[in-house]
Amino acid sequence: MAKTITVNGDERVAFHNNVDFCIGTGRMGLALTEEYLKELSFVQDIIGFKHIRGHGLFTDDMAIYQRRKDWRTGKETIEYNFTYLDRVMDAYLARKIVPFLELGFMPRALASGDNAIFYWRGNTTPPKEYEEWTRLVTTTLAHLVKRYGEQVYSWPIEVWNEPNLPGFWKDASMPEYFKLFKLTFLAIKELDPRFRVGGPAICGVRDAEWMKAFFDFCKEEGIKPDFATRHHYTTEMPDHVGHYGYQKLSDPQVGFDNLQSSRDIIDSYPEFKGMEMHLTEFNTSYIPNNPLHDTNENAAYLAYQLERLGETSYSYSYWTFGDVFEEMGVPFSLFHGGFGLVAHGCIPKPTFWTFAFYKRLQDATEACVYKGKNAVIVRKPDGGYRGVFWNMTDEATEISVKLAADAKEYTVLRETVDEVTCNPRKAWHDMGEPKNPSAEQVELIRRFAYPFAESEIAKRSRGKIALTVPVRAQGVVYIDVTEREFEGDRGFTYERRF
Amino acid sequence: MAKTITVNGDERVAFHNNVDFCIGTGRMGLALTEEYLKELSFVQDIIGFKHIRGHGLFTDDMAIYQRRKDWRTGKETIEYNFTYLDRVMDAYLARKIVPFLELGFMPRALASGDNAIFYWRGNTTPPKEYEEWTRLVTTTLAHLVKRYGEQVYSWPIEVWNEPNLPGFWKDASMPEYFKLFKLTFLAIKELDPRFRVGGPAICGVRDAEWMKAFFDFCKEEGIKPDFATRHHYTTEMPDHVGHYGYQKLSDPQVGFDNLQSSRDIIDSYPEFKGMEMHLTEFNTSYIPNNPLHDTNENAAYLAYQLERLGETSYSYSYWTFGDVFEEMGVPFSLFHGGFGLVAHGCIPKPTFWTFAFYKRLQDATEACVYKGKNAVIVRKPDGGYRGVFWNMTDEATEISVKLAADAKEYTVLRETVDEVTCNPRKAWHDMGEPKNPSAEQVELIRRFAYPFAESEIAKRSRGKIALTVPVRAQGVVYIDVTEREFEGDRGFTYERRF
Amino acid sequence: MAKTITVNGDERVAFHNNVDFCIGTGRMGLALTEEYLKELSFVQDIIGFKHIRGHGLFTDDMAIYQRRKDWRTGKETIEYNFTYLDRVMDAYLARKIVPFLELGFMPRALASGDNAIFYWRGNTTPPKEYEEWTRLVTTTLAHLVKRYGEQVYSWPIEVWNEPNLPGFWKDASMPEYFKLFKLTFLAIKELDPRFRVGGPAICGVRDAEWMKAFFDFCKEEGIKPDFATRHHYTTEMPDHVGHYGYQKLSDPQVGFDNLQSSRDIIDSYPEFKGMEMHLTEFNTSYIPNNPLHDTNENAAYLAYQLERLGETSYSYSYWTFGDVFEEMGVPFSLFHGGFGLVAHGCIPKPTFWTFAFYKRLQDATEACVYKGKNAVIVRKPDGGYRGVFWNMTDEATEISVKLAADAKEYTVLRETVDEVTCNPRKAWHDMGEPKNPSAEQVELIRRFAYPFAESEIAKRSRGKIALTVPVRAQGVVYIDVTEREFEGDRGFTYERRF
Amino acid sequence: MAKTITVNGDERVAFHNNVDFCIGTGRMGLALTEEYLKELSFVQDIIGFKHIRGHGLFTDDMAIYQRRKDWRTGKETIEYNFTYLDRVMDAYLARKIVPFLELGFMPRALASGDNAIFYWRGNTTPPKEYEEWTRLVTTTLAHLVKRYGEQVYSWPIEVWNEPNLPGFWKDASMPEYFKLFKLTFLAIKELDPRFRVGGPAICGVRDAEWMKAFFDFCKEEGIKPDFATRHHYTTEMPDHVGHYGYQKLSDPQVGFDNLQSSRDIIDSYPEFKGMEMHLTEFNTSYIPNNPLHDTNENAAYLAYQLERLGETSYSYSYWTFGDVFEEMGVPFSLFHGGFGLVAHGCIPKPTFWTFAFYKRLQDATEACVYKGKNAVIVRKPDGGYRGVFWNMTDEATEISVKLAADAKEYTVLRETVDEVTCNPRKAWHDMGEPKNPSAEQVELIRRFAYPFAESEIAKRSRGKIALTVPVRAQGVVYIDVTEREFEGDRGFTYERRF
Repeated sequence: MAKTITVNGDERVAFHNNVDFCIGTGRMGLALTEEYLKELSFVQDIIGFKHIRGHGLFTDDMAIYQRRKDWRTGKETIEYNFTYLDRVMDAYLARKIVPFLELGFMPRALASGDNAIFYWRGNTTPPKEYEEWTRLVTTTLAHLVKRYGEQVYSWPIEVWNEPNLPGFWKDASMPEYFKLFKLTFLAIKELDPRFRVGGPAICGVRDAEWMKAFFDFCKEEGIKPDFATRHHYTTEMPDHVGHYGYQKLSDPQVGFDNLQSSRDIIDSYPEFKGMEMHLTEFNTSYIPNNPLHDTNENAAYLAYQLERLGETSYSYSYWTFGDVFEEMGVPFSLFHGGFGLVAHGCIPKPTFWTFAFYKRLQDATEACVYKGKNAVIVRKPDGGYRGVFWNMTDEATEISVKLAADAKEYTVLRETVDEVTCNPRKAWHDMGEPKNPSAEQVELIRRFAYPFAESEIAKRSRGKIALTVPVRAQGVVYIDVTEREFEGDRGFTYERRF
Repeated sequence: MAKTITVNGDERVAFHNNVDFCIGTGRMGLALTEEYLKELSFVQDIIGFKHIRGHGLFTDDMAIYQRRKDWRTGKETIEYNFTYLDRVMDAYLARKIVPFLELGFMPRALASGDNAIFYWRGNTTPPKEYEEWTRLVTTTLAHLVKRYGEQVYSWPIEVWNEPNLPGFWKDASMPEYFKLFKLTFLAIKELDPRFRVGGPAICGVRDAEWMKAFFDFCKEEGIKPDFATRHHYTTEMPDHVGHYGYQKLSDPQVGFDNLQSSRDIIDSYPEFKGMEMHLTEFNTSYIPNNPLHDTNENAAYLAYQLERLGETSYSYSYWTFGDVFEEMGVPFSLFHGGFGLVAHGCIPKPTFWTFAFYKRLQDATEACVYKGKNAVIVRKPDGGYRGVFWNMTDEATEISVKLAADAKEYTVLRETVDEVTCNPRKAWHDMGEPKNPSAEQVELIRRFAYPFAESEIAKRSRGKIALTVPVRAQGVVYIDVTEREFEGDRGFTYERRF
Repeated sequence: MAKTITVNGDERVAFHNNVDFCIGTGRMGLALTEEYLKELSFVQDIIGFKHIRGHGLFTDDMAIYQRRKDWRTGKETIEYNFTYLDRVMDAYLARKIVPFLELGFMPRALASGDNAIFYWRGNTTPPKEYEEWTRLVTTTLAHLVKRYGEQVYSWPIEVWNEPNLPGFWKDASMPEYFKLFKLTFLAIKELDPRFRVGGPAICGVRDAEWMKAFFDFCKEEGIKPDFATRHHYTTEMPDHVGHYGYQKLSDPQVGFDNLQSSRDIIDSYPEFKGMEMHLTEFNTSYIPNNPLHDTNENAAYLAYQLERLGETSYSYSYWTFGDVFEEMGVPFSLFHGGFGLVAHGCIPKPTFWTFAFYKRLQDATEACVYKGKNAVIVRKPDGGYRGVFWNMTDEATEISVKLAADAKEYTVLRETVDEVTCNPRKAWHDMGEPKNPSAEQVELIRRFAYPFAESEIAKRSRGKIALTVPVRAQGVVYIDVTEREFEGDRGFTYERRF
Repeated sequence: MAKTITVNGDERVAFHNNVDFCIGTGRMGLALTEEYLKELSFVQDIIGFKHIRGHGLFTDDMAIYQRRKDWRTGKETIEYNFTYLDRVMDAYLARKIVPFLELGFMPRALASGDNAIFYWRGNTTPPKEYEEWTRLVTTTLAHLVKRYGEQVYSWPIEVWNEPNLPGFWKDASMPEYFKLFKLTFLAIKELDPRFRVGGPAICGVRDAEWMKAFFDFCKEEGIKPDFATRHHYTTEMPDHVGHYGYQKLSDPQVGFDNLQSSRDIIDSYPEFKGMEMHLTEFNTSYIPNNPLHDTNENAAYLAYQLERLGETSYSYSYWTFGDVFEEMGVPFSLFHGGFGLVAHGCIPKPTFWTFAFYKRLQDATEACVYKGKNAVIVRKPDGGYRGVFWNMTDEATEISVKLAADAKEYTVLRETVDEVTCNPRKAWHDMGEPKNPSAEQVELIRRFAYPFAESEIAKRSRGKIALTVPVRAQGVVYIDVTEREFEGDRGFTYERRF
């Protein structure tokens, strides 16, 4: 682990920090609920993502696709009901976030079979009539353009989700998915070529095979997707106990190599070289009941992910922003290992802060001056610095940092997220693990969920300031270094005692 | 310093904890301002006082007493304008606080001279016509009863402020004050005997002499005040530098003895024995520009005051709740040594938390089980405990506490306010002492102004639980001990790692 | 129609005005959604009901009853998940409303068959194991008591809904319902006799037969329900067109007579005589797609209902407070004939104001001085009056009112809800009937949804004041009459022109 | 009065509608108060002005200029305290409004004499040292630039207020004012030439003489002000009774002619031709106790003013936005004839709506299609129309309007402000003229303070739609005409009855 970092200030290290491009969410219908929207507001107020992507746009609880038989004539009418879609989109826009649309799953009335997934039974079969499907897609998109205007053309559209798994797509049939992709892509582009459409939305199972086949198909058909998509999870197989699954974290490099291999496949086609690759889902564990998600360990691991993912991928959407989620049923308890950056009651988990810290680096991402295995540092336009430090081990450490300094004095602000200072799960455990804490208990637990803040004055010596950054086990530390302008009042001496 | 405390749980120690009875404020006219009301809302939301007492009810900016000459006839009209009074009282009541009325100072149009005090020139001379004065008082009280109903009879009324100082009362004339008291007292009681009226509102200068003379006078005149009032400050003479005055804290016991002497004087009259004594002002320093007010040292010293003041006094009103204050002019900078529990921008100072912690003891004040020179502990109705610990020295210490336990396991929540964990003044200093920080800077400083929270599980052994309470230099620590009911979910093991 | 009303002031007419006892709602799971809770907040802020009753406590979206098979052992576990129940109850209590619990419908995992109702498929079959059912009920109630304390004992509990209809209860089987009632009643009373349990929750189909059989059964079994319940709807058969059903209002007296017959049946048993009868649902139309619900006609008809229902019934719960409702699917458009007092976007419908006006009468309900076919008037403790006037015809009218007066002058405030002054449906229609209006459009429509306010001064003459109350077609008018105290400022003359 | 208006739709009439450029306010120190800021928030939320201009930047309650004698050395220090200035500016910016700075009045410590104005005694004498004055001005401006950045250069700066009145400027001395202007102008431009500085800030007394002399002086001295300023009031001499002054409105044309004469004077100098002329104050009456301000008569008169003022003047700042004002003392009662667009408690007066209506015209001001003595109409980019109609007489009227129409159907929204529909002063009078109404009373009065809204559908016939706009006595009516797109749901027929 690098224990000493020296920065001359004019280094420029490549750093694609697209931390806020997109965030994941469960089924779209859940966006009608109050708890979901409270959690989303919380996340948007402090971090602020641009796009949100989740399943279930066409699942029955959104009630878009309606077939009704007239009780007198017996004639069937097909109707589109956008009441809930409009409500969800209004709620998103009011929170300054817009969708990364995933087209799926299949309305029961349009499904060709019973294959379904999750506690909420999303139908994952191909449409029984493809023309009806493309009409559903284009009618929905046209409605969105009518209501929300031209901005809709910039909302990315992904065709289906993880068709390489039989749970998500009947028989994980490649030809059927490619057919779906082609017909959907062409129908949308015919509606308006400005829409941006991509795929194949796969996860890590047989990913190279799928990625290659997908682009072969596109090449053959003369289709040029606007972007490629895949998912990225980094844990081993779970050990299931009761409602929970426990998994070990995998070696991060294995994951980065896997992403590079996807990148290489795409770039091997002259037609597609350099195409944006979006990780439309990523996280450590891929199950919504792994206690890991709620830990400081997860936060430290993610700090490293956020530093590296931009090397291969245009964007990477953490799965998910909040704990309102029903894929394996309704959670029984507060900290239940859900995917969320925040727990119910808007309690930020440690990983929330990893994202918040990287977001703050964005005002100077292009001026990255250091990027290593446990730290990234950028130089602010005002000559100061921002940095994120992390420690994926179980031992505390200290990192010595020397930073080129133009001014005599700097204010150093440091925020620490680790098991000692920011671990709401521990407070909740000490309180007896209340399943659904009262409002008062939630308020209490929230007090354990914010970084610990410290400040100091750093004075320049030989052109540099020297800092010591302590990073405890599984810790993430953020620093801000800003020139100190002194405004002291007449007669005031801070150091004078009483 | 007591390093070990053992509690059997059925001790009952006398502890008159009236921490929330009353809080001080500057000139009433300032209650029209937004910053004042924001700070008051903040204080009320977290602590919640019952009464508020300050100067300037009849000072000209409140505009109550109006003499207007008709420009045609030259005839003078006396009118009462309650627009601002109503606005202030409405604002108080909306924040669930009611006044402890101080009658003063003199409207210029009713003043007998030019003697005035403060930057805002409060006139401190006797009325030129006593009948006009009592009419002003009774008209105002009658108006309040009409607008706010019978509750007004329970608002304590104090006649004038510190008449034993020539700045506050021309020549510090005893006979003139006693005349004022008598006429005012009688006029109010004639309006309605339910009103509660007290005095002599003195500070520590020649206090015994004044207290004795006042009650001699009352006895002679057959007047029975509803309560006695005095002030209590505990610092030495200031060293003035620039805008500031620096003072040393005095020995607390000297102050407690001084209060006891007042108590004894009152109790020496059979007619007045046991009469409530209200400290209508108290603080460490009596000047609004002593940096001490903003420190952790002040917070620790106050912890001891709050434990002891109830021994002699029915109530004790900290001077003041917030930093909106103009007695020595408008403050030039954020932390300027003002009296407030909160600084501008609703930044709680360390002493704020001393009050908040004592407020939390109130649900079990009658079940005090320990009261010593650096700790007070009460037993909650549910069998748990609450305690406040403090350290008035410059050395860190640890206090061992053994508490009788009915249950097997307890959750211990600990909140620490000291120079390391809750010292907004330091963060502000490190930031360069910005005079009027921007909203963003205020938000940042506020992050350094809250107690650090920790939790742990305490298990019973031999009928007791054993805690170690670390109290750093000038620190104040609050603990809550509550039986731990375990609700753990099926399959969840907090300790299991990944 | 009474065109002249004369009040001597000391009349006392029986008037049981329990307008705010209970309000209806759709499926409980909808209470998780933001729109539902916004509408409920709106209703509670202005009207403020005490109880709320709806279906679906045990329906699967509430996720309370869980059977899970262990994937290793194959062993089935029964678990109770109260995450959503707690969230809903917390949301209710935060809005100062508590449930009138309806026990139903059947969790699929506990159902004996497939009989189901509504778009959301509530299972309406008896439990496959009655012991499992009563354990579900008592576990849920015990959980509520643990979380919310003793108040839960005062929440009325109704066993099932409309078992006299085969859609709601398989085969509308009386013996099966009586069995359900008995076992449920006994299990709850065993848990704690303080719980209050009632039935038979029937609607108007074969109501006399059911009511009689139910009480015969109770008598025989020695069971004494805490109250009786039934429903009350007052429209003819619908004419269905597209998504809508159009119905004519029935003669109110027919409905009142029907309720009286239920009352008489109950009172015919010495054991049950005088038992509270709760109308746990009532409205004009019983379908959620009748445009009538959104009209002024409905508001005027309801004004008469609210005056009369208390004659036979202890309470009467309007079905429903808001338009978040899915029994016939998700509404396609804003004004879709839903049951709600408010439409989506918190637009109050005319009928909302009928309830608001009756609520204001409650501070003087016991001093009712007039009760007739188009007006009810009460005398306030301060000597003034409040009244509600309505006009169920299509012709405008004026009502002359003479009121005994103690004071010389009164301020008369009048609020009018009719097709001219408070008809949001018309504004929406004029705007083109937008299906899901934007936030700006909603704000605009809301401006057409509040009563028109007027004021005047009434002067006493010969011991009375004389008012003229104009009531246009299908209008509802509220008046408040209060003694006018004049505070005029020196020199101000309202009448003087410029 | 024009009773028929026909619009072909492609007319383009000159209409300089700068209604939202600036709004007046009392003394700057009042901007510290809560009521002031609430009223300002209310005004900004609904209307939204860009600039705010008032007196008292340098008056002592703002506490900027401080001379302090050291109690030891006797040496005097000059200090600048920006605590309150920063607080006021922060509050303005938070409400999206920035100052139109008026430099004045004189800090007592810098004043050359005792000449003072208003209840709050603003000192109106020249500085005793001009260099001290310019240092005060430039230090203040430099501070603002440091805190708020480059936007400050765009805040207009006016030198002093109404120097042509002896109350506002000692002896109304021209040479002394010209000296003040020159030195101030030059000092500011030396600090940064980007600042925009103007004068002579006169009212209507000897205005032509002053305006001419001022520009003669500027020409002679080679000074080019950035803009000219004057005031504009349109009532006759007051009749004083008690606290009030009653005045008649003057003929509007007399005022417009007076403004034209100022315009002509400026334009007569080749150097200054076309220079912006700002009316930095205007209103009907110039006294803060004329009941006229609170009436519908004022609203109708203002509608005509707002249509015409742009013909001569770049901007026109209504004096004032709210009723927090102390020039003649603290108001005794709610409707006291104050200048405000809103009364205390954020009750909008009728004139408030005149401004709100003109603000809505701004999205199409450049497409004015009609401008007459009682109406102005603009065509919206979407092909619809907006219009304001008014009636300054005591007789009701109706205006027939024919508008060229591209579409078949239009939605017409109409909002009416007149004595019948929007007259809060009447409601308050009927309620007994409560001096300081309770929160409940204020809420009630507010219900009488909003325009009455109506809607209808207009169908095209022969290329036009025909509207009838009823305008009652002293009424102001706003209309919006928008193409009606019909979205009707299947089966819904608005007209069908029950």
